[in-house]
Amino acid sequence: MIEKNFIGHTLSAKGERVTRGSNPVTSEVLPGDFINATDEEITDTVSKSALAFETYRTKTGREKAKFLRAIAEEIENLGEVLIERCCAESGLPLLRVKGECGRTTSQLRMFADLIEEGSWVEAVIENGDSKRSPIPKPDLRRMLVPLGPVAVFAASNFPLAFSTAGGDTASALAGGNTVIVKAHSAHPGTSALIAEAIIKAAKSTDMPDGVFSLLHGSGREVGQSLIQNPLLKAAGFTGSEKAGRILFDMASKREIPIPFFAEMGSVNPIVMLPSSLKLSNAKTLAGSITLGSGQFCTKPGLIIGIDGPDLDDFIRDLATDLSNIEPQAMLSEIICNTYNSSIEICLKRDNIKIETKDLFLKKKNFAKPVLISVIGEEFIKSPELSKEIFGPFSIVIKCKDIEQIKKILNQIDGQLTGSIFGEEEDFDDFSNIINKFERKVGRLIFNGVPTGVEVCSAMHHGGPYPASSDSRFTSVGTMAIKRFVRPVSYQDWPNHRLPEELQFDNPLKIWRMVDGNFTKD
Amino acid sequence: MIEKNFIGHTLSAKGERVTRGSNPVTSEVLPGDFINATDEEITDTVSKSALAFETYRTKTGREKAKFLRAIAEEIENLGEVLIERCCAESGLPLLRVKGECGRTTSQLRMFADLIEEGSWVEAVIENGDSKRSPIPKPDLRRMLVPLGPVAVFAASNFPLAFSTAGGDTASALAGGNTVIVKAHSAHPGTSALIAEAIIKAAKSTDMPDGVFSLLHGSGREVGQSLIQNPLLKAAGFTGSEKAGRILFDMASKREIPIPFFAEMGSVNPIVMLPSSLKLSNAKTLAGSITLGSGQFCTKPGLIIGIDGPDLDDFIRDLATDLSNIEPQAMLSEIICNTYNSSIEICLKRDNIKIETKDLFLKKKNFAKPVLISVIGEEFIKSPELSKEIFGPFSIVIKCKDIEQIKKILNQIDGQLTGSIFGEEEDFDDFSNIINKFERKVGRLIFNGVPTGVEVCSAMHHGGPYPASSDSRFTSVGTMAIKRFVRPVSYQDWPNHRLPEELQFDNPLKIWRMVDGNFTKD
Repeated sequence: MIEKNFIGHTLSAKGERVTRGSNPVTSEVLPGDFINATDEEITDTVSKSALAFETYRTKTGREKAKFLRAIAEEIENLGEVLIERCCAESGLPLLRVKGECGRTTSQLRMFADLIEEGSWVEAVIENGDSKRSPIPKPDLRRMLVPLGPVAVFAASNFPLAFSTAGGDTASALAGGNTVIVKAHSAHPGTSALIAEAIIKAAKSTDMPDGVFSLLHGSGREVGQSLIQNPLLKAAGFTGSEKAGRILFDMASKREIPIPFFAEMGSVNPIVMLPSSLKLSNAKTLAGSITLGSGQFCTKPGLIIGIDGPDLDDFIRDLATDLSNIEPQAMLSEIICNTYNSSIEICLKRDNIKIETKDLFLKKKNFAKPVLISVIGEEFIKSPELSKEIFGPFSIVIKCKDIEQIKKILNQIDGQLTGSIFGEEEDFDDFSNIINKFERKVGRLIFNGVPTGVEVCSAMHHGGPYPASSDSRFTSVGTMAIKRFVRPVSYQDWPNHRLPEELQFDNPLKIWRMVDGNFTKD
Repeated sequence: MIEKNFIGHTLSAKGERVTRGSNPVTSEVLPGDFINATDEEITDTVSKSALAFETYRTKTGREKAKFLRAIAEEIENLGEVLIERCCAESGLPLLRVKGECGRTTSQLRMFADLIEEGSWVEAVIENGDSKRSPIPKPDLRRMLVPLGPVAVFAASNFPLAFSTAGGDTASALAGGNTVIVKAHSAHPGTSALIAEAIIKAAKSTDMPDGVFSLLHGSGREVGQSLIQNPLLKAAGFTGSEKAGRILFDMASKREIPIPFFAEMGSVNPIVMLPSSLKLSNAKTLAGSITLGSGQFCTKPGLIIGIDGPDLDDFIRDLATDLSNIEPQAMLSEIICNTYNSSIEICLKRDNIKIETKDLFLKKKNFAKPVLISVIGEEFIKSPELSKEIFGPFSIVIKCKDIEQIKKILNQIDGQLTGSIFGEEEDFDDFSNIINKFERKVGRLIFNGVPTGVEVCSAMHHGGPYPASSDSRFTSVGTMAIKRFVRPVSYQDWPNHRLPEELQFDNPLKIWRMVDGNFTKD
């Protein structure tokens, strides 16, 4: 396991301070002194990344696809070493880590398929018309091109799928950008192993030195220094609203502002229509609330229903199901402490009813699933209650009528998702709720929980602020590539000097919009 | 001509201060005391716009298309009254204003066609698979939806095509957003006439009160108050880098940041390959530099060639052609004064050679075309020389070799356009220049001037900062709609509750990406 920073293919350890991994389950400090990057090393890394971009941006889709597939293979080659280290650093169960590893390599291959096929560049062609009066119409051809060096801020809760070789890295590399990952300090060993795999893949597929770099250190030091580097062209981030906003502000205040996509907090409200309360949805919801110990950006943190005996029964069932679920370790001591203190603050409010038993656990870093309930009127008076609490915690809001539900949906912040549970015939009475949701969320789910984010081309994982910093982009699925590319138009350009994607005879046989119609001709 | 603010369909004039138009050619103050909007009126306007959005967002593409077409018709119905007022306020020649009016109505109809056809929503469908193991694949359907109330900051240099009913307004309305225009203080009468046309069209096509509003006043007061209103969801701006950046910073610093697309400064460099210097390009360039008195964001402000007798001849020809062009009025006294003082500052530098005669004119508000030349080395030492001077001004840079051209292209800021003039066979020696340009510009032009921006689906009018605040978006062409929309995914949603665009049998017969292929089925 390499403990130095990866400045492209070069290892570097000029710093004095180190990051160490520890096992949140046992509190044991894990082997490896990962040397934090110095300012000098950060500068060198971005410069190298910018230089490598000059070469990498000219690689064909096929060449880049080969690189992404090689990364997936090298990650698989890491085998048990990776899985063990990741389990140890994250405290996540073996099956989850194996599943996440599979998702990571699938994502890399999905982007490989995307860029090998090639239509993602959104080629649009308008043929010229030299006879048009009063002025001739020029020949115009547009496609997407990469931005340049992209910084990726690894997430704590997805040590593989949203970290070193996760969705941000895969989409940025697929788009033709070079990548610099700021390793998450909670899983430096996992990051180092993956970085080694990426560098191996880069070498074996003849990618330029600097196409990928990994830097260790804190968000405050390394992250902030990185985001302010003038050669950096964009960044992707998954994490808390607080950290995301600090970096977003820095990205916006630069002399040359850069796109900064942050996927941040969300409480993923669920509206339980009356018909849904008698069905066996409590178990499904309990599973979603506690999945990964509730440390998912899509964890349902707000459950909204109309007050009455049916809702009371549902709450009782849900509380029982939650209480029966074995507590799991949280990702880190900080996260566990924040979870417990956030609940304590929440409970200090008036008129909060605790529905689950035994609030806190003696076992260090382990979190107890907690369900509370509150009446609609009280929730409306307490906007803080709609802030995300990261962990296996959820609030049921008992509303007096549909109007109150609408008021609550109006009041809450932007969300990654919104779910509606119920029989379809209930919709006629509740159609306004769908409208409210459409305004607030990035994904609308019918009779399903928000966890388990499908990685595909129709997925939108992003939403109005603070769910994400820019609701126009997604961080999951093939469309995540759009964050890191921009259009360029070529006007009256000689055919054989054009990128292949735009040439007259469509040598790549990609889907193109030609004079208003999609065609592969 | 209505002198009050349009708060939706309601006229309002609570303010004390007024904006007056004046004729830059004659300095005559024009009739009309346009009442500046007060803070209270601004708040009321955005609230009304947000309320109207609830209705307007549910209008079908066909309904919105009818509205946009009605606006175009109502503008045409204004006839000579509009053309005369616009000529008087802008000082632009009659033919230009008539042409711009045609462009404005064409743009509205282009967006009407786009939304009536409907494929612009980028519907992506991935059918579910209940038998997939280990977990079933959900049915996911994604499309673009509007953001909400959008502020449009009208441009001085396009009193019609980038103002009240210009590209920003047309694209925002087409996307399903409500619009609030901050009238440009240099053409309040033109703005008022157009606003009246839009309100007439809104009424006749049954659009909600608040779908469109117009506010008079200064950018500092009305503009800044508008951009900070919490109900505003996005903004479009065309203007100077300075004003654009102030508003961009405000949009980014909000508690809930909003997308702010600013199309700002550009010098649109032109590289003259050696083979181009002997051709008769000087006249074409002189026309482009002086078009609209050089008050275009696409005016070529930098001409780069390799030093030698051919370049000297070209400069002489260009200077002669420029000197022969009749000086025109500038859009306003402020713009003319800034033009003259910017040139004065520029000429204070060492080693600047003035190629045209008679720098300044005695005729108030009229600007003389000015060409200067400088050697490459000197230009590299003076980054200020690459800042835009708005008006009929251009700099020729005499480079000693290709390396110096590359160095200059590396050094300059992001640009809307970059042009290369020359014989195609020259490209082999200069291919690196294309690469450099691709990194810096939004549109690459071969043997053509950047002015005359084609309004179509393949146009990209935007570029790396400061050409625009976000290089991923365009303000000209159908794709301009993308600035004001965001994706939403529907998961496992009942078919007949889905928006028509996503329903199983594709009732609108739009292009959709279904399981990876474009189809109208």
